[in-house]
Amino acid sequence: MTTGFFGDISQIQYEGEDSTNPLAFRHYNPDEVVLGKRMEDHLRFATCYWHSFVWPGGDPFGGQTFDRPWFKDSMEAAKLKADVAFEMFTLLQSPYYCFHDADVRPEGADFAENTRNLNEIVDYFAKKQEETGVKLLWGTANLFSNARFMSGAATNPDPDVFAFSAATIKTCMDATHRLGGENYVLWGGREGYETLLNTDLKQEDQQLGRMLNLVVEYKHKIGFKGAILVEPKPQEPTKHQYDYDTATVYGFLKRHGLENEVKMNLEQGHAILAGHSFEHEIATAQALGIFGSIDMNRNDYQSGWDTDQFPNNTPEVALAYYHILKHGGFTTGGTNFDAKLRRQSIDPEDLLMAHVGGMDICARGLKAAAAMIEDGTMDSFVTERYAGWQRPDAQDMLAGKLSLEDIVAKVEGDGINPKPRSGRQEYLENVLNRFV
Amino acid sequence: MTTGFFGDISQIQYEGEDSTNPLAFRHYNPDEVVLGKRMEDHLRFATCYWHSFVWPGGDPFGGQTFDRPWFKDSMEAAKLKADVAFEMFTLLQSPYYCFHDADVRPEGADFAENTRNLNEIVDYFAKKQEETGVKLLWGTANLFSNARFMSGAATNPDPDVFAFSAATIKTCMDATHRLGGENYVLWGGREGYETLLNTDLKQEDQQLGRMLNLVVEYKHKIGFKGAILVEPKPQEPTKHQYDYDTATVYGFLKRHGLENEVKMNLEQGHAILAGHSFEHEIATAQALGIFGSIDMNRNDYQSGWDTDQFPNNTPEVALAYYHILKHGGFTTGGTNFDAKLRRQSIDPEDLLMAHVGGMDICARGLKAAAAMIEDGTMDSFVTERYAGWQRPDAQDMLAGKLSLEDIVAKVEGDGINPKPRSGRQEYLENVLNRFV
Amino acid sequence: MTTGFFGDISQIQYEGEDSTNPLAFRHYNPDEVVLGKRMEDHLRFATCYWHSFVWPGGDPFGGQTFDRPWFKDSMEAAKLKADVAFEMFTLLQSPYYCFHDADVRPEGADFAENTRNLNEIVDYFAKKQEETGVKLLWGTANLFSNARFMSGAATNPDPDVFAFSAATIKTCMDATHRLGGENYVLWGGREGYETLLNTDLKQEDQQLGRMLNLVVEYKHKIGFKGAILVEPKPQEPTKHQYDYDTATVYGFLKRHGLENEVKMNLEQGHAILAGHSFEHEIATAQALGIFGSIDMNRNDYQSGWDTDQFPNNTPEVALAYYHILKHGGFTTGGTNFDAKLRRQSIDPEDLLMAHVGGMDICARGLKAAAAMIEDGTMDSFVTERYAGWQRPDAQDMLAGKLSLEDIVAKVEGDGINPKPRSGRQEYLENVLNRFV
Amino acid sequence: MTTGFFGDISQIQYEGEDSTNPLAFRHYNPDEVVLGKRMEDHLRFATCYWHSFVWPGGDPFGGQTFDRPWFKDSMEAAKLKADVAFEMFTLLQSPYYCFHDADVRPEGADFAENTRNLNEIVDYFAKKQEETGVKLLWGTANLFSNARFMSGAATNPDPDVFAFSAATIKTCMDATHRLGGENYVLWGGREGYETLLNTDLKQEDQQLGRMLNLVVEYKHKIGFKGAILVEPKPQEPTKHQYDYDTATVYGFLKRHGLENEVKMNLEQGHAILAGHSFEHEIATAQALGIFGSIDMNRNDYQSGWDTDQFPNNTPEVALAYYHILKHGGFTTGGTNFDAKLRRQSIDPEDLLMAHVGGMDICARGLKAAAAMIEDGTMDSFVTERYAGWQRPDAQDMLAGKLSLEDIVAKVEGDGINPKPRSGRQEYLENVLNRFV
Repeated sequence: MTTGFFGDISQIQYEGEDSTNPLAFRHYNPDEVVLGKRMEDHLRFATCYWHSFVWPGGDPFGGQTFDRPWFKDSMEAAKLKADVAFEMFTLLQSPYYCFHDADVRPEGADFAENTRNLNEIVDYFAKKQEETGVKLLWGTANLFSNARFMSGAATNPDPDVFAFSAATIKTCMDATHRLGGENYVLWGGREGYETLLNTDLKQEDQQLGRMLNLVVEYKHKIGFKGAILVEPKPQEPTKHQYDYDTATVYGFLKRHGLENEVKMNLEQGHAILAGHSFEHEIATAQALGIFGSIDMNRNDYQSGWDTDQFPNNTPEVALAYYHILKHGGFTTGGTNFDAKLRRQSIDPEDLLMAHVGGMDICARGLKAAAAMIEDGTMDSFVTERYAGWQRPDAQDMLAGKLSLEDIVAKVEGDGINPKPRSGRQEYLENVLNRFV
Repeated sequence: MTTGFFGDISQIQYEGEDSTNPLAFRHYNPDEVVLGKRMEDHLRFATCYWHSFVWPGGDPFGGQTFDRPWFKDSMEAAKLKADVAFEMFTLLQSPYYCFHDADVRPEGADFAENTRNLNEIVDYFAKKQEETGVKLLWGTANLFSNARFMSGAATNPDPDVFAFSAATIKTCMDATHRLGGENYVLWGGREGYETLLNTDLKQEDQQLGRMLNLVVEYKHKIGFKGAILVEPKPQEPTKHQYDYDTATVYGFLKRHGLENEVKMNLEQGHAILAGHSFEHEIATAQALGIFGSIDMNRNDYQSGWDTDQFPNNTPEVALAYYHILKHGGFTTGGTNFDAKLRRQSIDPEDLLMAHVGGMDICARGLKAAAAMIEDGTMDSFVTERYAGWQRPDAQDMLAGKLSLEDIVAKVEGDGINPKPRSGRQEYLENVLNRFV
Repeated sequence: MTTGFFGDISQIQYEGEDSTNPLAFRHYNPDEVVLGKRMEDHLRFATCYWHSFVWPGGDPFGGQTFDRPWFKDSMEAAKLKADVAFEMFTLLQSPYYCFHDADVRPEGADFAENTRNLNEIVDYFAKKQEETGVKLLWGTANLFSNARFMSGAATNPDPDVFAFSAATIKTCMDATHRLGGENYVLWGGREGYETLLNTDLKQEDQQLGRMLNLVVEYKHKIGFKGAILVEPKPQEPTKHQYDYDTATVYGFLKRHGLENEVKMNLEQGHAILAGHSFEHEIATAQALGIFGSIDMNRNDYQSGWDTDQFPNNTPEVALAYYHILKHGGFTTGGTNFDAKLRRQSIDPEDLLMAHVGGMDICARGLKAAAAMIEDGTMDSFVTERYAGWQRPDAQDMLAGKLSLEDIVAKVEGDGINPKPRSGRQEYLENVLNRFV
Repeated sequence: MTTGFFGDISQIQYEGEDSTNPLAFRHYNPDEVVLGKRMEDHLRFATCYWHSFVWPGGDPFGGQTFDRPWFKDSMEAAKLKADVAFEMFTLLQSPYYCFHDADVRPEGADFAENTRNLNEIVDYFAKKQEETGVKLLWGTANLFSNARFMSGAATNPDPDVFAFSAATIKTCMDATHRLGGENYVLWGGREGYETLLNTDLKQEDQQLGRMLNLVVEYKHKIGFKGAILVEPKPQEPTKHQYDYDTATVYGFLKRHGLENEVKMNLEQGHAILAGHSFEHEIATAQALGIFGSIDMNRNDYQSGWDTDQFPNNTPEVALAYYHILKHGGFTTGGTNFDAKLRRQSIDPEDLLMAHVGGMDICARGLKAAAAMIEDGTMDSFVTERYAGWQRPDAQDMLAGKLSLEDIVAKVEGDGINPKPRSGRQEYLENVLNRFV
C-alpha cells in the first residue's frame, strides 16, 4: 500500500554497465565488495529531506514549479510527505536520510507548538524507520528560514533569539538521539553578517562559541554517541558566514576548545564557493583531524551561488573518495545527497533518476578511488617525494633541535645549494586518468 | 647631488584641496593633527622597494617596459638603485620603506655570496637612513622568486630547501634588526601547493609551523623588539597558499602555539582575492587580537589576479582606517604602499604621481574615519543593537551558566517568541556617506 | 488623506550637506542647475515597483521578513499597494516610476483574466499619475516568475508559451503607451538555458529575434514614441542568459536587423555579474550607438549573485554619469532605482532612507561628473593621446586607402620603429579624485 | 641524428588501455576509425611552439625554472629550438604545429631585421616539414610581448604602431602561406584597455575593424585558402580585451562586414575566464556559423587567470567534441594544445608525458562523443522537445506571418494556457554518463 506518488515504479536494481534503463543502477551494487567492504557500507548514502520534499522549485526570480500533494502546512500533509519520503528512500535503496526540524513538521506559532509538532512527527518517523529499515544519518535544526533568525540565530544581537535557537537545537538533538541518528549537524546559514557597519564580530564570536559548547555539553549529558558536525560555507545567504571553510572552522574550534569534539560536514558546492576544490576541503579536514561526513552535490562552475546540483563528473568524485579512503573511510559519517533537482525537472521520476545518477557517479568514483589505492603509484610517489625528511638531520630540524643559527652553520658547512626536482604534476594526472 | 633620475622635481609639498599640481599633496599634510596625533604618525607611510625599483613592467604576456639605469645584476647597480630609492622616499616625504633581500642585493651563486651581498648593501642603507632620516618599517626574505623555491621554501619536500630558507631568513632578520626595522614580515608565496596529487598537507603544515617557531625563537634571542607579521594571500602564484586569509592563519598560529607572538600584515588586494573586503580582514584580525600592519593597494574587481594598483577609492580606504582607528591605530605597523605602476606608466614622474595620489587617498580616508569616530553615530548604533546582551540573564547565558535544558525552561517559562528588528543597513551606509 | 503606511513623514526636502536628518536630501536638489539643466531633468529618477512593493524579503534560504498590508493577491490589495507606492513616489520627489504587469495586478487564472486585471489597475494608475504628477519611465512584462515561463518565454520549446508571452507583451505595451510611458523594456530572465544538453541554440535565437521584431513592429503600429530597451544580464536565474551583456546584445540586434530600433537599459549589478564595470557597459553602448537608460543599484563585489543594493559609492556613480553626460545625457532614458532593501531592513522608513541615500549618491555623482566635464583635463588628455591619428597618412590608413603591402612599404620606407609613451593611468585617476 | 634533448625516448606508440607506460598512448590510436574517419583526421592535433619551447617557466612571482639549451636570442639557438621542436612533434606523432613569429626567430632591432630573421627560420621550417611530414595548422603574429605593443597593436593610440603591426602581420601571413598553413590566427592580447580614463572605444574599434579587413583583403590577394581565425579572450593581460568571447566577436564581425570571412579559434581556458563553459563557446560559434578551430587546454576553476594546463577531465572534453562532431567535425581547424607545463615540471620527459596525457584525454573524449552520436538518445530528446515548433501555426508565427495582435487573437481564441513540461536535465546528464 503506497501513496502512489511514484506510480508503479519498483525498487531500483543494479543492472550493470550495459543497462540503458534510466531507473536502474549501472554502477552502484550495494553488496559488491570494494577494498574488503560492501559498497553500501563504504558509501553510506543518505537522501536529504529538504531539497526533495520541501523545496517548491522556486528561485529568486520565480516561484513554485513542483506540484506536490503535501505542499500544505498541516500535520496531515507532513505525514503524507513522510510516507512519500520513506517510499523514495526504499525505492532508491538509500540506507539513510537526513532532515531539519522545519522540513518535517508544520510551523507552529511558538516554541511549544513547534516542539509538539516535531515530537509527533518523530514518533511517525520512528515507526517508518522500523518498517523500512531506513536509518537516520543526521538531524539538524533549521535556524535560518524563519524571519526571527534574519539577523542570526546564535549570533543574533537579541539574546532572546539565542535562547530560542538553543531551545530549538535541544529539541532537534533529542529527536536525532531518539531516532538513532549517527551524527548531529550545525549549519549556520545566518551566523554571519550582511554589513560590518552594524556588526560586532567579537561579540558574535563569543555567542557562536557558547552555542557550540552548549551542544557538546548536552551531547555528553544525554549520551549521544554520534558526532557533532559543523558544515562550513563562505556566504549565501549572508554576505559572510563565520564558518567560512574548514580552515576557518578549525581556528574557531581551537579558540573555543572544541577541536576534539566537533568534526566537519563538507559539501562540494560550499567548497567551490569558498574558492576551494572539494578534495582540498576533505584533505584539509583530514590533516587537521576533523573530517566527518560529506554532502554530495556539485556547483555550476560558472555560477556564483549554491546550485546544489546532483554530481555528474566521475573524475571529481573519485578524487573526493580517494582522500576519504586513504584516511580509512567514513566512521559515523556518510554520503548525503544535499542535491536538488533543477526547477524544470518537475516530474516524480526526475527525483528518482537524479538520485540514481548521483549514486552511480559515487559508486564509480569509489571504485576508481579503491583502484588507485590498490595500485599505489600515486601514494608512493608522494612518499618518495618527501623522503629526504626521513634523514636524521632533517628530522632533527623538524623536531626543533636546531636553531636558526645552527641551520646557518649547516648550510654554510655543507655548502647546501639545493637543485629543483620536477613536481611531475602532468604525470600524476595521467596516472589518475588510468582509474577514472 | 642627486642621481638626476627624477630630473628637477623637488620635494612634494602639501598645497591644499584646490591645487591642481599633480606633484603636490592635496590632502596629506604630515603635521596636521587628527584625533590628537600628527597625520604622519597615524599613517606611518612606507614605500616598497620591489614594485617601484625592481619590477621591470612585465606581465605574463610581455616583458620589460620600464627603462631604469639600475636594471643590471651588480653591486654598483644595486647602489644606484638605493640612491634613487632614497631620493624618492625623500621626495615623497615617505617616513618609512620596506624591502626583500632579493630586491636590494645582486643575486649570488650561493648562500654565502647572497649573505655577503646583503650585508654590503645593508651598510649602504644604514648610511642612507642616517642621511635622510628615512626608517625601515619592515624587512623580509624573498623565498619565492628563485627556482630553488619553486616547490616551496619552508614547505619544500626537500629539507635542504628548508635549511637554505631558514638560513636566508636569519640573514634578513639580522639585516632588519641592524637597520632598526620596526617589524619583520613573512609572505609565503610558495608555501602552498599546485596539486594535491603530489602534496602531503600534514607534513608541510609541520614544516611551516617549525619555520615560524624558529623565527619567533630567534627574534627573542636577538632582542628584536618589532612585531613578527605574516601576510595572508589565498593563491597566486600557487593554486592554494596555506596562509589563505586571516582566519586561516589564526588557526595555524593556534595550532603551533604562536597566536600571541605573530600578527597580520593585511593587504587589500589579497583580501579581495580571498573573497573578502579589506575591512573584513582588518576587523577579523582585530577581533582575534592579531592585527599588525597593512599593505595598501587595490585590486581590480574584474580581474582574478593580484593587480596591486594604487588605491583610488576614498570610501573604501576610509572604512579600512575606521576599523584601524577604532582599535587604537597602528603600533609597530604602518601603511606600506605595496602598489605598482601600471606597466604603461613608464616615466619617472609616474612613480611620483602614483604615490602622491595614493598618499592623498589615505589622508582623505584617515580624516573621514576620524570624523566618523568623533561623530559617534555609527559606533553607538552598534552598541545599542547588542544592548540586550547586557541584561544579567543574557550575560549568564553567554558565560555558560545555563545549560540547554535551562534555556528551554527559560524559553518556555518566559514565552520567548522574538520579533525581528530592522538592521538599518541603508541608514548606516548613508551615515557613512556623510563622511566620505 | 494617506494610507498612513509611512506615518507622519512628510515630503523629503533638500537641506544641504550639513544636514544630519536621515530623511532629507543632502545633495539632491531638483531645481539646482548643473551644466545648464535642472538636476531633476538630468537624473530623471524613477522608483521601481517590484523591489519596494512586491518582494517580501525572501532569499533562497528564508522567507518573508517584510510585513506589508498589501501582501495579498486581490484587486483591493493591488490598489492599496498603488496608493502606498504613489505616496512614496511623492514623498521622495521621484518624478518617474517603472513596473512589470505582475507587480501591479493580481495573478489571473489565464491570459484573459490577467488582461482584465491589468487594465483595471492601469485605469487606477492613470488617475494616480494625474493626481500626483508622477510619470511612467517604462513598463515591462514579467515573463519569468510564473511556472509557465520556467523554460523560457520567447525561447520556450513550446510555441504556446511564445504565443502567451507575445500576447502578454502586447498588453504591457498597450498599458505603457496609455500611461504615457517613455520607454518599454524587455528583460529576458528566462531567455537562456540551464543546460546545453536539452537546448537548441539556433532555434531559440530565431524565436528571440522574432519576438523582438514583433515588439518593434507593434511599437510603430501604435505610434509609441518611446524607446524599446533590452536589459542585458549574463545569468541568474538561468545558467546562461542570451542577452549576456551590451556587446552580445549588439550582435543579436545586428543579426536580426534591429540595431537602429532597440537600445540598452544597463544595470550596474548586471555589468558586475558579466565581469564588467558599469562604466564599461555604458561606454560600450555609447560607442555602438545603443545607449538608452540605466538601472541604478550596486552589487556586492564579494557575492556572485545579483544583490541589487542601493548605490553608495560616489566615485563609481560619478564615472557612470561622466560617460552619460559626455554623450549628451539621457533622452528618453533615466535613472531607475532597481534596488532593493536588505531583507533585515524591515521598517517603512528603511524604504525611504534607502532611496534618499541613493538619490544623494547620484546627485553627488552627477555634480562630480559635470565638474570633470567643465574642467576638461581628462577629455583633452584622451584627445591628445590619439592625436597622431589626425595625421593625413594615418587617416588614409584608417580609411582603407592602404593595403598591407602599402603599409609594409611605409614602415620600411620611413623606418618606423615606434617608442612607447606613458599611458598615465595613475595621473588620470588622481585627476578624477579631484572631483569625487 | 637527434639533438639528444629527449635522450633515448623513441616515438610514442599506442599500447591500449591496460598499458601503464607513461610514454605510451592508452587511447589515442591514429589509425583507429571513428564514425568513418581515422582518429588522426578527426582530431588534427597540433603542438604549440610558445609554451613548450619559449616559455621559461616564469610566473609573476618567479623566474626561469626550465633549463633549455636554446634559451638564447640568436639564430643558432632558434635553429636548435626548431630541431628539438620537430623531434618532439615526431615523437608525439603530432601531425601539426602552430607558432608566432616571435617564438621562432631572434628578436631584431627593427622591422627589417625581424623580417629577415623570420624568413631565414621559415626556410629552415620548410625543410623540417618536408623531412618529418609535420604540417602547419596555423601561424600568427605576436603583437603583445614587445614593449612597443604595450598600449595595443591595431588599437594603439599611435598610428605608427598600427603600421608596424600591420606590416608584421603581412610577414606572418606570408610565412604561413609559404609553409602551407591551413589557417591564420589573430589573438589580440593587447587589443583592449587598462582604463577607460585614457581610452577612446569608438576610435579603437575602427582601428581593429580596419586591421581585420586588411588581413582578409590580403588573404584573398595572395590566394591563401586557409581560414582567418580570431581567438577570443575576455581579459589578461589587459583589463578588458575587445574580442571578449564568441558572441562579442560576432557583433564585431557583423559591424565590420566580416561575418562570412572570419571564424573562431576557441580555447577552453578563455571560455572559463569569460564565464562560459567550453561547450558554450563552441555551440555558440556553431549557431552563429563561425566555428573554426580549438585551442585545447584547461583552466583551474579556482584560479582567476589563464592557467593553460593540459586537459585532464574526459567528461568535459567529450562535450566539446560532441558539439564539434554534431556539426560535422573540423574542416581547416584542429586541436591545438595551447597548454603549458606546470613550472615545476622541469624535465624533458614532462613535456612528452603532458602531451601524451592530453592526447589520450582527447581521444577518449572523441570516442565518447562519437558513441553519443551513434546512440542518438540525446539528440532525439532535443528534437522531440522542440517538436511543437514544427506545427504549421508555430512555423507561421516564427516566420513573421502573425503580428502581436494576431497572436493575442490566437491566445484568446484557442484559450492557450500552457503547462510546463519537465526539462529532464538530470536524465540527460545520466545518459551522457553512459558514454564518458
